[in-house]
Amino acid sequence: MDLQYALELTGTFVFAISGALAIREKEHDLFGAGFTGFITAIGGGTLRDILLDSHPLVWIGDIYFLYSILAGILTAFLFPSILSRLRKTFFLFDTLGIGFFTVLGVEKALSLGVRPEIAAIMGMFTAVMGGVIRDTLTNEIPILFRKEIYASACLAGAILYLVLDYYSLERDYNMLISMSLIISIRMIAMKYKLSLPRLG
Amino acid sequence: MDLQYALELTGTFVFAISGALAIREKEHDLFGAGFTGFITAIGGGTLRDILLDSHPLVWIGDIYFLYSILAGILTAFLFPSILSRLRKTFFLFDTLGIGFFTVLGVEKALSLGVRPEIAAIMGMFTAVMGGVIRDTLTNEIPILFRKEIYASACLAGAILYLVLDYYSLERDYNMLISMSLIISIRMIAMKYKLSLPRLG
Amino acid sequence: MDLQYALELTGTFVFAISGALAIREKEHDLFGAGFTGFITAIGGGTLRDILLDSHPLVWIGDIYFLYSILAGILTAFLFPSILSRLRKTFFLFDTLGIGFFTVLGVEKALSLGVRPEIAAIMGMFTAVMGGVIRDTLTNEIPILFRKEIYASACLAGAILYLVLDYYSLERDYNMLISMSLIISIRMIAMKYKLSLPRLG
Repeated sequence: MDLQYALELTGTFVFAISGALAIREKEHDLFGAGFTGFITAIGGGTLRDILLDSHPLVWIGDIYFLYSILAGILTAFLFPSILSRLRKTFFLFDTLGIGFFTVLGVEKALSLGVRPEIAAIMGMFTAVMGGVIRDTLTNEIPILFRKEIYASACLAGAILYLVLDYYSLERDYNMLISMSLIISIRMIAMKYKLSLPRLG
Repeated sequence: MDLQYALELTGTFVFAISGALAIREKEHDLFGAGFTGFITAIGGGTLRDILLDSHPLVWIGDIYFLYSILAGILTAFLFPSILSRLRKTFFLFDTLGIGFFTVLGVEKALSLGVRPEIAAIMGMFTAVMGGVIRDTLTNEIPILFRKEIYASACLAGAILYLVLDYYSLERDYNMLISMSLIISIRMIAMKYKLSLPRLG
Repeated sequence: MDLQYALELTGTFVFAISGALAIREKEHDLFGAGFTGFITAIGGGTLRDILLDSHPLVWIGDIYFLYSILAGILTAFLFPSILSRLRKTFFLFDTLGIGFFTVLGVEKALSLGVRPEIAAIMGMFTAVMGGVIRDTLTNEIPILFRKEIYASACLAGAILYLVLDYYSLERDYNMLISMSLIISIRMIAMKYKLSLPRLG
């Protein structure tokens, strides 16, 4: 099992935990929380692969993704109060996660032969659309439309990856640099409560 | 026309009626009610087939499904007050419907070669996601997240079907037993207002 | 570049502008507005092509659609107040747009070999589902369910197109007549505040 595969399963695990905990304050039961964890973990990659007609979907073709999700949901069920105290750790994990999945999504889209402009959108979708679908189902304003810089950080990182790839930067370095950009933008935006200007 | 096919068309008809009536108290016009009936009837199977890349979709490949839906919508339009008095009958129909479609969804997924764990999810999706999409479009909290046991009953029935199938139980018996589990859980949960525990 | 292709790109441009401006009064930032413009422009055609398994999706296979969308979003960003004063012009553009995309959607579905009944639904979906997805994401009641006649006008135009096509009317005339029906119904409904009757 190579490093990237281990990271993918870990990222899926973390997204499932954060999805299951996302609705904790609401009236949802355990099943609702599990469902939300599942959707958060698979939503972005599923949307990307359906748009690009890439089948089988990752979690349908490789059962270990489903096991990672179930492990994440179970963890959220068993240790909710511990996890809540780790809120800052989770914010970090989520930020690492969106950085990682953005780059993975860009690479997968490129490998399927689409143009870089489309690959950038797919990278961002991979990272954020699971959360958007979760928020839509639970009648929240999707995270995408809330004030903090979130999806736009992913888009910036995806574009940087494509630019550096165009200039033939070695892939591992590129991945690190592009992820760092996403993570930095997101953390600085949170710390200083930065947001993009509004329309009009 | 064999029995199963007749049941599928009947189930689609019933789901279309219940979908069209679901928004009755709201400000929606006839078109909105018809659209809601349509989405409720096709949503679950459509999501399953898109996730599994099974084309043509059932209602696109066989026009009789669309006719069943139109008949259901028309019935809802012509006899709304009669149907409202049949509320209990409808609850029964809906419960039979989710039991039936869960098992059908599991079987279809298995026939497409996915693993049993994935087939269980697909069975549940087939039964409940039409209602979830309907609720999302009409800004309701999806039925999945409300208190009564609903989707979890379908998941339990789907898992039972797979276990009995693993032990080679004859298909017709398996279908009856697994549907009975779903229907029993749902009716007992409604009667005694049972719900799953909440998180944390 | 022939006339139809130019019209498709123009229609996409207009839909992107109206999508980006749709959320103007809300708290969304520029990124949210851009995302909304994007979804509005591609949503309907994307849903149609996924349901019909037609790949690559139009905007993934032809990058000029993405450029039209970006141009529309940029226009909305640069001239929001001018565009707001053109509200009536925009209503006209949107009405032309749904008429045009309905007919295009019907034709594409027919060319993929589906039955006319399905093609009528696909025509309507092409025109209105981008707006429906936009409204769902932004927690609005989808335009489909609001009072004015909107999607039903598209459905009527789609059916007229299919009837005239059945009687072998020449395509260009058919397109003009069917679009005119959609546009007329919509404008008359707006002017006289007509709506379909409600259920029950």
